[in-house]
Amino acid sequence: MEQVNVRWYVEDVSAHSCPVAVAGLPGVGHVGKLVVDHLIRALSAVKVAEITSTLFPPQMYLSEDSVLRLPRNEIFFVPETENHQPLLFLAGDCQSTTPEGHYTLAEAYLRVFDLLGVKRVYTLGGYGVGRMIEHPRVLSALSSSKLKEEVIAAGAVINPEEPVGGIIGAAGLLITLGRLHGMEGIALLGETSGYLVDPVSSTAVLDVLERLVHLHADRTELTDLAEQMMTDLAAAAASAVGPRPPDDLSYIG
Amino acid sequence: MEQVNVRWYVEDVSAHSCPVAVAGLPGVGHVGKLVVDHLIRALSAVKVAEITSTLFPPQMYLSEDSVLRLPRNEIFFVPETENHQPLLFLAGDCQSTTPEGHYTLAEAYLRVFDLLGVKRVYTLGGYGVGRMIEHPRVLSALSSSKLKEEVIAAGAVINPEEPVGGIIGAAGLLITLGRLHGMEGIALLGETSGYLVDPVSSTAVLDVLERLVHLHADRTELTDLAEQMMTDLAAAAASAVGPRPPDDLSYIG
Amino acid sequence: MEQVNVRWYVEDVSAHSCPVAVAGLPGVGHVGKLVVDHLIRALSAVKVAEITSTLFPPQMYLSEDSVLRLPRNEIFFVPETENHQPLLFLAGDCQSTTPEGHYTLAEAYLRVFDLLGVKRVYTLGGYGVGRMIEHPRVLSALSSSKLKEEVIAAGAVINPEEPVGGIIGAAGLLITLGRLHGMEGIALLGETSGYLVDPVSSTAVLDVLERLVHLHADRTELTDLAEQMMTDLAAAAASAVGPRPPDDLSYIG
Amino acid sequence: MEQVNVRWYVEDVSAHSCPVAVAGLPGVGHVGKLVVDHLIRALSAVKVAEITSTLFPPQMYLSEDSVLRLPRNEIFFVPETENHQPLLFLAGDCQSTTPEGHYTLAEAYLRVFDLLGVKRVYTLGGYGVGRMIEHPRVLSALSSSKLKEEVIAAGAVINPEEPVGGIIGAAGLLITLGRLHGMEGIALLGETSGYLVDPVSSTAVLDVLERLVHLHADRTELTDLAEQMMTDLAAAAASAVGPRPPDDLSYIG
Repeated sequence: MEQVNVRWYVEDVSAHSCPVAVAGLPGVGHVGKLVVDHLIRALSAVKVAEITSTLFPPQMYLSEDSVLRLPRNEIFFVPETENHQPLLFLAGDCQSTTPEGHYTLAEAYLRVFDLLGVKRVYTLGGYGVGRMIEHPRVLSALSSSKLKEEVIAAGAVINPEEPVGGIIGAAGLLITLGRLHGMEGIALLGETSGYLVDPVSSTAVLDVLERLVHLHADRTELTDLAEQMMTDLAAAAASAVGPRPPDDLSYIG
Repeated sequence: MEQVNVRWYVEDVSAHSCPVAVAGLPGVGHVGKLVVDHLIRALSAVKVAEITSTLFPPQMYLSEDSVLRLPRNEIFFVPETENHQPLLFLAGDCQSTTPEGHYTLAEAYLRVFDLLGVKRVYTLGGYGVGRMIEHPRVLSALSSSKLKEEVIAAGAVINPEEPVGGIIGAAGLLITLGRLHGMEGIALLGETSGYLVDPVSSTAVLDVLERLVHLHADRTELTDLAEQMMTDLAAAAASAVGPRPPDDLSYIG
Repeated sequence: MEQVNVRWYVEDVSAHSCPVAVAGLPGVGHVGKLVVDHLIRALSAVKVAEITSTLFPPQMYLSEDSVLRLPRNEIFFVPETENHQPLLFLAGDCQSTTPEGHYTLAEAYLRVFDLLGVKRVYTLGGYGVGRMIEHPRVLSALSSSKLKEEVIAAGAVINPEEPVGGIIGAAGLLITLGRLHGMEGIALLGETSGYLVDPVSSTAVLDVLERLVHLHADRTELTDLAEQMMTDLAAAAASAVGPRPPDDLSYIG
Repeated sequence: MEQVNVRWYVEDVSAHSCPVAVAGLPGVGHVGKLVVDHLIRALSAVKVAEITSTLFPPQMYLSEDSVLRLPRNEIFFVPETENHQPLLFLAGDCQSTTPEGHYTLAEAYLRVFDLLGVKRVYTLGGYGVGRMIEHPRVLSALSSSKLKEEVIAAGAVINPEEPVGGIIGAAGLLITLGRLHGMEGIALLGETSGYLVDPVSSTAVLDVLERLVHLHADRTELTDLAEQMMTDLAAAAASAVGPRPPDDLSYIG
């Protein structure tokens, strides 16, 4: 097994060429992962490639029928329709186990994006602020100041002081290393407590993303999760018992 | 010293060819290790190969006469008898010291298995549930859904929700990477508290394994350990003193 | 991306040749970083080269207009003037994420220094003493005992017992590995509590450095920071509330 | 800089050929380091080689005159005299920063030993037992059971149950990997609390070593340290104040 392994699921890569990719890997509040996993299902995206890596945790996942599989990141494709342009998605179980591995993996994703003709990358994630946020803002960071007006018009906030500490992991690296590949990059980070999986923040990020890529997908599933979260929190507050713990990811599915 | 070193203890590798391997390395509750170490002794298995590695901890072990040896994993062979088919065992002191090393070592074990003609791998381990379990279930995860009926018939439980978090380390990797080598794989994980070396859980795993490989070995030693554990726990409960601490492995031998 | 990447910002490297380099990377109390970042601004130093590395944390930084950039170390140049000799500066966001990476990065900096004709390296840093120090001493360590008189004359303290534990990271490695490159080296470490970003200690280090390199730069900015720190501490003592926490680096800019 | 660097301090390596090496690197209670550092001074041993490594901590040491140096391990030689056979010593500041690095460094030391004709290696260290020991035993572990009688006759204890957990780091690896180089190996571990630098335990180890290598060196320095330690401990017990803390290594010199 190589350090990074790409397995293609389509015969004709060029037929899945697409200028726009959206990445949502696990991270703070799973904000980005919730959005991308939701869109892949809502748009019936097709799997194009799978990345496995010795830089991922040595933790095997159960799929249906209790069949074990390697931890993986996946590339999905949605063709152009009346409602939206063609889109690629990067989704997955995990990020690197080491600091240096983050660079290696981001480069691997970008090489796949290069083969697929990607010219712009959106990275979705969360920005932990340490308290519950009812109406989360969506902070943005860019590969170039030329993109500033576009993201502000879509409802994101541009503030060089935020996120404090910058952006850690793939959500940041795909923007900075992507620029070296000639790609535009826009990071969208939803404010979130940092303690919970946060579909409310994901909904705010999805709002901005939809305006940017001219997409309108059914969002029943994500809205249901968000409503359930608000109900849970209200109940928790009423009973003075703490909220659902952060590692309870059971409703990601 | 290479990163992984295999030393053969037999001249004719092909004479020890065997379609079935059973792996039980140290892990949660030492459930898998207890079973495999027990079977190696009960069946008088013969050592076929030894793996040492710079990915193992730099901790040297004392053998009899206080002779020091490297930490190691070992492959043992039992020929076919009236009571069972031929079997290979993977046993050892330790697993990798790094996440990436788990992948490297699993690949090394599988290359040895390839040379020995292995077509099916059983991996044995524990699943920590955080409380004492009197009648542990044995959870199974598979390389293919085709194996489902067979393991259920042998008494294992198939539930894609369990173990929560999947399987970490060699017990999982030998199944997923083994599939890439064309091997069938069945993981058997006995429920265990996670706090103690647990021969009771090991006995439950052995029950399932014996049905799967049509084996019936003397199990006096393992039963004695399990009975002693139950007696110790009853005494600990009576005296309100905590049970034997988890790192006391002195009765593994 | 290579493990270490050097990007030159000038066409003619030899035109920026300079015998003296001053390094101030992040470390205890950010003492060295404050001095070097201050001098780069005060002397309007010109950027000569940028070092990025997979050994840096995978944390992307926001620059103005919320454009994301890789973590980096930078080399700046100031030509000779009436007030001082020509100078090079090594500044940056971070140091290595691994012990071995510290050696790799120090070697990379020294190769750049070799190309720029550097013959002497000053490294600036802090020495944490665990209590507030009103009048910090500046401890020095050397590449050769020949340099002893010079640094004592400039106001530094030479004591082989201090800093206890020696010097960790680039401030030490640039001296010891630099000697293998034929460079003289002088480390200047300002005493500091270790709990706060400490412009007071930086001012003491700058005093010694200015005498050694015959430099006199405007230091309004650094003095303002130091005065603000003393005011903050006095206020904190008066209100019995703890001082500004150590990770509040917001006034570094 | 290579991962491991050997610099020879003698022109004629073969003139320093010697069948016996004694290794005492930092470890539990600095028991082995105290003995070897003491013998190097007491016997006026000559430096033969120096090992530096990127696997050592990036921590630079101050020598006299505040000159900085890399962390290092050193090989010293003492020629044959009326009082003893010729001896080599391995001494130094540190061990590896990573588990895998321990294997790499042990192999590097053994390659140097090969060049110097070493046939037997003694490794000295401490065995932490978690309580103060007035009359420490010296436990031994071996490369071969043939050596058993010899070490027992010299006053060491052979017990396959001790040290519990085996031997970690160079003191163990030089024995196990040394056997692959055709060298005999004897580890001598003095019982020690594990909380303090322990010259009392070192004295016990030196007693056994001297019988094994037929050496009788002045031990005033080590005895003085041991007496001071006993006095300190008695005073600490009397004042009910804790003993000298474990990281106070100031009297190692």
